[in-house]
Amino acid sequence: MLTFRTATRADGPAILALLADDDITRARAAAAGSPLPEPSAAVAESVDAALWAAYEAIDADPCNELIVAEAADRTVAATCQLTFTPSLSRGGAERLTIEAVRVRGDLRGQGVGRSLIRWCLDRARERGCRLAQLTTDKQRTDARRFYESLGFTASHEGLKLPL
Amino acid sequence: MLTFRTATRADGPAILALLADDDITRARAAAAGSPLPEPSAAVAESVDAALWAAYEAIDADPCNELIVAEAADRTVAATCQLTFTPSLSRGGAERLTIEAVRVRGDLRGQGVGRSLIRWCLDRARERGCRLAQLTTDKQRTDARRFYESLGFTASHEGLKLPL
Repeated sequence: MLTFRTATRADGPAILALLADDDITRARAAAAGSPLPEPSAAVAESVDAALWAAYEAIDADPCNELIVAEAADRTVAATCQLTFTPSLSRGGAERLTIEAVRVRGDLRGQGVGRSLIRWCLDRARERGCRLAQLTTDKQRTDARRFYESLGFTASHEGLKLPL
Repeated sequence: MLTFRTATRADGPAILALLADDDITRARAAAAGSPLPEPSAAVAESVDAALWAAYEAIDADPCNELIVAEAADRTVAATCQLTFTPSLSRGGAERLTIEAVRVRGDLRGQGVGRSLIRWCLDRARERGCRLAQLTTDKQRTDARRFYESLGFTASHEGLKLPL
């Protein structure tokens, strides 16, 4: 039993814990010389001004939504961020970009991520989007298979440049 | 001599002509049963309500910018769309996504695209973005090399799903 909804400020610490609980994120943070804390009470304390400002920017912008999947016990089971981008391509339709998808460690392999992505795709269809897109690190071979099983095609190279 | 700026309504027809003048776009439109007109006066007439609504949405949203490179003769030499996405990752920094990059056919191979992308990256740095990203169709092998020469790494799979 999952409930999908936009995040509130109260979800902040749980979302940050999910974002931090990821091998690639940990490696990136370590390489940048700023290792993230282990997901714990310390994460809640690390919700600093920059992150709250980002949360407020997401919350205020009609093109961005922070989504959580809530478990029956009211805890946050999974999260992702949706960006709806207006475009002059494809007849002026919006496209959905999905970022920062995370499922809580103890709930992986149970279909939570699949339900979350399907819900997001339905939300995009309701909004009139004609394309959904995301990128996934080539190290995440399981993730590519997961998204392909949901109908995505790995037709594009995803290029990144740290600034 | 190029001038970079955000687009105005007057640039709409020229931008649509650039978007249409692309083999992959043409193939996609043909597959969808709605071939785009050849870049010509007809393009200007095809600027319909949905496209103007998309233009207005881009123009009104602080997270989206439609960019044009203007040649010395005041014509539009190139275009792209910038999306600045607030995020709880990377310390709350925004990321820049670049979409719909097009250089006018008669100006290709002269460094116009390179100048455009560099200008966009500078704009993102000024705004405090910590990451720039884009996807490019795997059929566009020249495009991948172009972006790699600008410092991008093809570290990710770009997955798409028409809705």
